[in-house]
Amino acid sequence: MKRSFGSDNHSGIHPQILDSIKHHNNDFVPAYGDDPYTQEVEQLFKEEFGPDATVFFAFNGTGANVLCLKALTQSHHAIICADSAHIYVDECGAPERFTGCKLIPVRTSDGKLTPELVKKELKGFGFQHHAQPKVISISQATEFGTLYTPKEIKALAALAHQYDMYLHVDGSRLANASASTGISFKEYITHTGVDALSFGGTKNGMLMGEAVVLLRPDLTESFLYIRKQAMQLFSKSRFIAAQYIAYLKDQLWKQNAMHANEMATYMAACLKDVPQVTITHPVESNAVFAVIPPKICDKLLEKHLFYVWDEDVCQVRWMCSFSTTKESIDTFISDLKSLLK
Amino acid sequence: MKRSFGSDNHSGIHPQILDSIKHHNNDFVPAYGDDPYTQEVEQLFKEEFGPDATVFFAFNGTGANVLCLKALTQSHHAIICADSAHIYVDECGAPERFTGCKLIPVRTSDGKLTPELVKKELKGFGFQHHAQPKVISISQATEFGTLYTPKEIKALAALAHQYDMYLHVDGSRLANASASTGISFKEYITHTGVDALSFGGTKNGMLMGEAVVLLRPDLTESFLYIRKQAMQLFSKSRFIAAQYIAYLKDQLWKQNAMHANEMATYMAACLKDVPQVTITHPVESNAVFAVIPPKICDKLLEKHLFYVWDEDVCQVRWMCSFSTTKESIDTFISDLKSLLK
Amino acid sequence: MKRSFGSDNHSGIHPQILDSIKHHNNDFVPAYGDDPYTQEVEQLFKEEFGPDATVFFAFNGTGANVLCLKALTQSHHAIICADSAHIYVDECGAPERFTGCKLIPVRTSDGKLTPELVKKELKGFGFQHHAQPKVISISQATEFGTLYTPKEIKALAALAHQYDMYLHVDGSRLANASASTGISFKEYITHTGVDALSFGGTKNGMLMGEAVVLLRPDLTESFLYIRKQAMQLFSKSRFIAAQYIAYLKDQLWKQNAMHANEMATYMAACLKDVPQVTITHPVESNAVFAVIPPKICDKLLEKHLFYVWDEDVCQVRWMCSFSTTKESIDTFISDLKSLLK
Amino acid sequence: MKRSFGSDNHSGIHPQILDSIKHHNNDFVPAYGDDPYTQEVEQLFKEEFGPDATVFFAFNGTGANVLCLKALTQSHHAIICADSAHIYVDECGAPERFTGCKLIPVRTSDGKLTPELVKKELKGFGFQHHAQPKVISISQATEFGTLYTPKEIKALAALAHQYDMYLHVDGSRLANASASTGISFKEYITHTGVDALSFGGTKNGMLMGEAVVLLRPDLTESFLYIRKQAMQLFSKSRFIAAQYIAYLKDQLWKQNAMHANEMATYMAACLKDVPQVTITHPVESNAVFAVIPPKICDKLLEKHLFYVWDEDVCQVRWMCSFSTTKESIDTFISDLKSLLK
Repeated sequence: MKRSFGSDNHSGIHPQILDSIKHHNNDFVPAYGDDPYTQEVEQLFKEEFGPDATVFFAFNGTGANVLCLKALTQSHHAIICADSAHIYVDECGAPERFTGCKLIPVRTSDGKLTPELVKKELKGFGFQHHAQPKVISISQATEFGTLYTPKEIKALAALAHQYDMYLHVDGSRLANASASTGISFKEYITHTGVDALSFGGTKNGMLMGEAVVLLRPDLTESFLYIRKQAMQLFSKSRFIAAQYIAYLKDQLWKQNAMHANEMATYMAACLKDVPQVTITHPVESNAVFAVIPPKICDKLLEKHLFYVWDEDVCQVRWMCSFSTTKESIDTFISDLKSLLK
Repeated sequence: MKRSFGSDNHSGIHPQILDSIKHHNNDFVPAYGDDPYTQEVEQLFKEEFGPDATVFFAFNGTGANVLCLKALTQSHHAIICADSAHIYVDECGAPERFTGCKLIPVRTSDGKLTPELVKKELKGFGFQHHAQPKVISISQATEFGTLYTPKEIKALAALAHQYDMYLHVDGSRLANASASTGISFKEYITHTGVDALSFGGTKNGMLMGEAVVLLRPDLTESFLYIRKQAMQLFSKSRFIAAQYIAYLKDQLWKQNAMHANEMATYMAACLKDVPQVTITHPVESNAVFAVIPPKICDKLLEKHLFYVWDEDVCQVRWMCSFSTTKESIDTFISDLKSLLK
Repeated sequence: MKRSFGSDNHSGIHPQILDSIKHHNNDFVPAYGDDPYTQEVEQLFKEEFGPDATVFFAFNGTGANVLCLKALTQSHHAIICADSAHIYVDECGAPERFTGCKLIPVRTSDGKLTPELVKKELKGFGFQHHAQPKVISISQATEFGTLYTPKEIKALAALAHQYDMYLHVDGSRLANASASTGISFKEYITHTGVDALSFGGTKNGMLMGEAVVLLRPDLTESFLYIRKQAMQLFSKSRFIAAQYIAYLKDQLWKQNAMHANEMATYMAACLKDVPQVTITHPVESNAVFAVIPPKICDKLLEKHLFYVWDEDVCQVRWMCSFSTTKESIDTFISDLKSLLK
Repeated sequence: MKRSFGSDNHSGIHPQILDSIKHHNNDFVPAYGDDPYTQEVEQLFKEEFGPDATVFFAFNGTGANVLCLKALTQSHHAIICADSAHIYVDECGAPERFTGCKLIPVRTSDGKLTPELVKKELKGFGFQHHAQPKVISISQATEFGTLYTPKEIKALAALAHQYDMYLHVDGSRLANASASTGISFKEYITHTGVDALSFGGTKNGMLMGEAVVLLRPDLTESFLYIRKQAMQLFSKSRFIAAQYIAYLKDQLWKQNAMHANEMATYMAACLKDVPQVTITHPVESNAVFAVIPPKICDKLLEKHLFYVWDEDVCQVRWMCSFSTTKESIDTFISDLKSLLK
């Protein structure tokens, strides 16, 4: 069976997820979220994130991010993010298009914002010519697979709130973060003061389905209309619910994410003794970023699927997922070493 | 097992669809449409709609409609539709929000536009103060379950093209239309001159997934970016593909839609001899619209799920789907008759 | 000197307006509204509309209308207006484009909404699929030159507020209404419960400049950013201020509007004894709408400038302005009568 | 008479401009650009920019910029600009809001883009996840008062066209550039290959009015609707025309801009021997940027109006305009020197 290190969404559906879909396919139920399964999931999210958290499903990560940002902003606001953020780089301008807001990119070395970096952009408040900063948006894990500590998130939340702003977390790989550190969703999100979270699922074994988690009840008032107008309302909502039931109830999220993380750690370990390969970011979740010799890159790409992240320096990204196997990594490392000879 | 006449999306997933998803869950494949299954479906759509047709998946009906309209317009354009159209009534302003266009509603008796009705709105061309008419949008089947003939569609397409406009078809229930009349998709769409089609699936037994079919190659140029920016790009595209493979290859669409239509026909037949119930639209697909005595409406709603379409006259809508059973209709009719006594 | 009945904005600038611009052109002053003249006008508007009223300048009528609507809505809202409203017909979709809202047109006989007409559209509250009605928008004077009474406006405001909605008035010709009836701005707007007003100037003798008047302090919070983002912030604000100082302080608005109204009344009187000409709307401000024999229309257009409002029935619109002269009307009537012979 | 160095739009209207407005206030003329004066100006712009150039009026600089960008883009495009650009910093997100595009800011030392700087952002073409680069936007003169040579502009235009992109110039101070170097508008814009230009007027002695100059006829097709929908269509267009007639015909633009430039040069010269003041950018037009001792800044602001550009280093901006006088500069320098003692 062919394996890919291209993306964690190159993998398929975890069997337990499919089983749960099948299990919930037994009846007529109301559509658009008015079914008992969606309501069951709403309860599960409250258990994970606390009683003030409200969950809404979305179709994909871009949808979840844009919905969060729209819930937090008016069109004259600005959103501060890392210049490597998915919302800045990989969403074809969807955040700007749907919120009307300006995105302010901040250069970072590791994909992580800090209060110091953000503060430089906290200016122009009350000046009618400037888009007004309203959201700090971070990714946990970041696009480089690095992690924030709860303390770091707390500091960013505090900074945001000090300026009457919000903190948004793109958690398309929050499961990988939690599985890596043993720190719970609640500790990462609820206790740090995060206001809105995009909570992933698709990259970690689900068929499709992401969740918007709003941590403050006052943010939810118009959300149903925002979601519908953003084309993110799913008629057969129960089938996202069915997935999250399997995903959360039996901690399938943890099992899948731990495996993906372990595979990345294993891959990095295998590369330790390969001097021509430099791992560029600490491997803290399920991604390995490395600089490799340009001359072997194309040949490696012929045999294995992965992305060249930065062509200028031949930095590549290798992603592991719940279905990545040790054997496939062994083959990959072996192929890589052969090419290096 | 409880049955609903509320909507065809209250039903679940047809087992063949689920099997196909499972069958295609066997491998790593590239995401975002670069997989072989999506490419197989692209071919299937060319067989159904001709070689000039290009298909793109979307998540839901609103997404498919908005993507079609965005592909056909610039923001200063106007879109003419029936005042009962889904795009006008039931999408929370998503078409206006994402295209920037003005929607011009036309009052109809049966949900169907005619050249005569449309012509009244074809004015102001070249006048800078007016949004410029650019799209005629119709639904086949309509929101009232009525059908256009190919000749009627052809006449609207000819009118559109005469004014350098486009014809869009919201085909969330096109399968029901074709199954009802035996007229093929190609005859309804390709041969009549339709420019863009939203092709449904979810309401007729799929888990989720709609398709945008662009009938003119010049319309496709920027479509990938439009879809991404509209938050309608699905990472694990193969799992929409898997559904359409089952749906189209073995004509599951026809089997499902025929059943739904037959159930509606059966229901209407059962009501023929009930003088207090007036069927208000010809039952040409899977919907039954009827005016019922207000005094029984609430009681009937306690036992069965359906929508009151027009409260003023107590017009109700009963929808049938692939999983509606004769028994459930019998029970429903029996309950209704008891209440009328 | 050639005269036009095409529009009240075919006339030029009243000399007192130009003198006031010249008079205020004597100094360096801060831009963007931070000058003493703009502040003086802010006071003048409070005198006209009461202490809770806040004024903001805009460039043109479309700008003022769109700013008002944006201040009152979020993008998932709907705005109810007459199907003859300037915001619906003559702004090339700017309201939809900039607010994201759906506009719901209501057919009227005379351009005037009534609670009965509006109530039919007050539905779908709380239903996530429907754009949520949030604004009733009326024009005073209407596009047909007809007037609302304060009582009629009050009833619409009460209806709006009952549903947690707002009432907006497009007052591009509010001066004509007040000059016609002697009813003050305050009586028409403040005392009836209007929430936001577009207050004209350009059509009544100003060079350019319209005003947004927000009647509720809580609506003003983000307005400066909304205006800037809507490209309606004027750097040399003092020169709109200078015009409004002349316009309001010495009641130039009343003098100009009264003259325009009188000219329309005179024109209508001249046509009383012309059986082939039917005046279709009561002449309550500065517009005369009439149905004339189609055969003379083109010939009359060769000599005089005016608009054909409805080609189907050859309904025409003749507008009078502050600079329309009795002589020009006499010539016009004489030409019309000659053609009718 | 009090003078300001805060902005060139703190000055008033040049008397010749006001005279021209008065001179053209003599008649009824059609509105919205269909008047003979607007048509006369269209000819004047063709003389300045060549026969392929088409001019459209806008109200203000933000309006002109946004209209240009909208004419060049679809919503999934990206616009590359200096991170000091007016469109990026000072328009409250209007470009993002109205075009839907992503703005990509490039850090520069002097406000000027170079092909080398731009090339780093020319990536992701054809990749559906990335907003597609479509416009390079520069300012001439830049926000720091620095100038591009025609050769530098030509290189950027060539780069843009090589990638099927456009070059836009924000020329709110193009007059200052041309007056400074003696290089004509045609040499700066038409001959270098610029595609769209925002041409200023308000900052150089006009009451209000900017111009969009489209250098390629194929860009003009939908422009009238774009402008109307963007709320930038002026009814009494003749009064912008009147200003441009005075401005262009007798080269008032040059006279005014030369004076403003000379005043800035004079000011800079006066500061040469002041060691505590460091001029940070070459004074090539009408702006002086300087770093001054923080301790005198507030006191200087009490007596004179100017902006602190960068609080961190106490960099300030002093702008000169057509009405800045040598005496006011002398006073200013004298005050500054006193404070430094």
